[in-house]
Amino acid sequence: MSLSIKDHEIDIVIGALRPDLTSFMSEWRPIFSRFHLIIVKDPDLKEELKIPEGFNLDVYKKPDIDCVVGTSTSTIFSGYSCRYFGYLVSRKKYIISVDDDCYPAKDNKGILVDAVAQHITNLTTPATPFFFNTLYDPFTEGADFVRGYPFSLRSGVQCALSCGLWLNLADYDAPTQALKPEERNSRYVDAVLTVPARSLMPISGINIAFNREVIGPALLPSLRLGGEGKFRWETMEDIWSGMCVKVACDHLGLGVKTGMPYVWRNDRGDAIASLRKEWEGVKLMEEVVPFFQSVRLPREATTTEDCVAEVANVVKEQLGSKDPIFARAAKAMVDWVMLWKSVGSSTSSPGA
Amino acid sequence: MSLSIKDHEIDIVIGALRPDLTSFMSEWRPIFSRFHLIIVKDPDLKEELKIPEGFNLDVYKKPDIDCVVGTSTSTIFSGYSCRYFGYLVSRKKYIISVDDDCYPAKDNKGILVDAVAQHITNLTTPATPFFFNTLYDPFTEGADFVRGYPFSLRSGVQCALSCGLWLNLADYDAPTQALKPEERNSRYVDAVLTVPARSLMPISGINIAFNREVIGPALLPSLRLGGEGKFRWETMEDIWSGMCVKVACDHLGLGVKTGMPYVWRNDRGDAIASLRKEWEGVKLMEEVVPFFQSVRLPREATTTEDCVAEVANVVKEQLGSKDPIFARAAKAMVDWVMLWKSVGSSTSSPGA
Repeated sequence: MSLSIKDHEIDIVIGALRPDLTSFMSEWRPIFSRFHLIIVKDPDLKEELKIPEGFNLDVYKKPDIDCVVGTSTSTIFSGYSCRYFGYLVSRKKYIISVDDDCYPAKDNKGILVDAVAQHITNLTTPATPFFFNTLYDPFTEGADFVRGYPFSLRSGVQCALSCGLWLNLADYDAPTQALKPEERNSRYVDAVLTVPARSLMPISGINIAFNREVIGPALLPSLRLGGEGKFRWETMEDIWSGMCVKVACDHLGLGVKTGMPYVWRNDRGDAIASLRKEWEGVKLMEEVVPFFQSVRLPREATTTEDCVAEVANVVKEQLGSKDPIFARAAKAMVDWVMLWKSVGSSTSSPGA
Repeated sequence: MSLSIKDHEIDIVIGALRPDLTSFMSEWRPIFSRFHLIIVKDPDLKEELKIPEGFNLDVYKKPDIDCVVGTSTSTIFSGYSCRYFGYLVSRKKYIISVDDDCYPAKDNKGILVDAVAQHITNLTTPATPFFFNTLYDPFTEGADFVRGYPFSLRSGVQCALSCGLWLNLADYDAPTQALKPEERNSRYVDAVLTVPARSLMPISGINIAFNREVIGPALLPSLRLGGEGKFRWETMEDIWSGMCVKVACDHLGLGVKTGMPYVWRNDRGDAIASLRKEWEGVKLMEEVVPFFQSVRLPREATTTEDCVAEVANVVKEQLGSKDPIFARAAKAMVDWVMLWKSVGSSTSSPGA
């Protein structure tokens, strides 16, 4: 891990959708035990949480959430969105967040992957969004920029978001999962790369890390499907939020990386039962992707909060009439920026 | 390899910069022997070629080149550019081209990589330039589109170019090579990905394959450095040509993939001795990259020949006055399109 980062600059945020975190925490103990953890219990979850001893952590439950944001607002944190409460109350520079059905992965050589170290390396080395380096992340040990890469672009830009991947059960949607129930991802790709500027991607919330000080307010719960459930393939909040983050990063000259670290994702849920719900999300993407591809933010938007507010405006204008879900998302984004400013800590201009 | 591709639809083009191809051909025999080879001898090379028996091949030397294009034009094929003569005279649908100092690589499991099969797989499965798939090429066996990927974009587009990579001596420029003389690339990244639309990259000519029928005329010798020598890091012709190809592919709705297959690249040349020459190329890239990033082709450009001619126009207009090398490149591009139309076989619209 980068020597310049202190352990106390990192919060690990876990959204607890299941009551028993014993095996999850035990598996992650060798990696997580040095860090402060924020565990946010899904407000819909009735059972008591079971968390093993020996961690430095704060647990937030429904009464805590109500107390901080009020009972009318606390509903935005139900289900997978509970983690966003952790993002809101954290005061650390870096946040790492992993779903509670994921376990540490092993690399090609059978060695346990330190997902925290890899995420922090990704975030603390520059990103290169303006020209593609064919040998992947040039800041990886043993790598460099290939012939023809302009020297003026080699210093890169600050990396704001690191998107990790998944072994075993990949992050497919319900139709794909239902169509290929036996498909498991066994391909460990030993690479990290910067997603080029102006290129959008489906950012998954399963295994991510970000610089909260520069991009925090753009990771937000705003698009909630009507039939949203407690399985990943029934959610779209992270995909929507990911579009906002990428558009904001492109506008602010920040980078987004994808690739390592991997986590091992366990099987959970019945894809076929989720199929009916999922189609809503699948249909929405046909509107969402061309919309975000066309969004251009005004020069006056110089902070992440500005960018989110501007995106919210355009969502309301251009998508608001197509489906009430978009109008609700736009309002949720505006509310989130206000909440972040009052409860969270404001960001500074990333260029500063 | 894709079952729908016949061996006789493929030409393997080798530019011979060294007279003795014995070890090169012997190492590649298990992979190349099924295919037709076009070997083009660097017109500057005086010694006789040594080529082992047992291949189905045509060899083109200076007199053959003079005969086809005339003695005044044949100079464009000197050095690494000799391979472009092979592209010109081929009548096959697919071309695969590997530098003569590259050998077959082994994968992570120690198995010999069939570079031809991998290139053909890359070219015959769709590319996805309009939205980034975090699990790499979704058409790889065992892979798919991740949650949030719009279904309407999943059929992808035709892939026109496949850029392979290099183990051992990577394709660094002379300054990087001189600065890190011991650096060797040992990272075998088990992935292929589509380079997103509107994202440019340094395309290396060391290990590439392309669909000659759709994009052939854009692979062309046009930017020749003053002190261009016989080492890769002293050349820029492939990087320039790569910019033209990518811009044409983006305009025509075609895809470019990068990643596997790897080749093993042997050490050759003295990077420090090349440093003085290389700076010209390095400096040019500072103009070349922003230029190509800004180029937008008119709707009327519907074939690759049109695209090359249009790029040539803009090069002449916008870069012509900055350095005479650009004016010469623009003229060479126009000449190449005429040559391709008369000597080569015209392409059809890729959309047709």
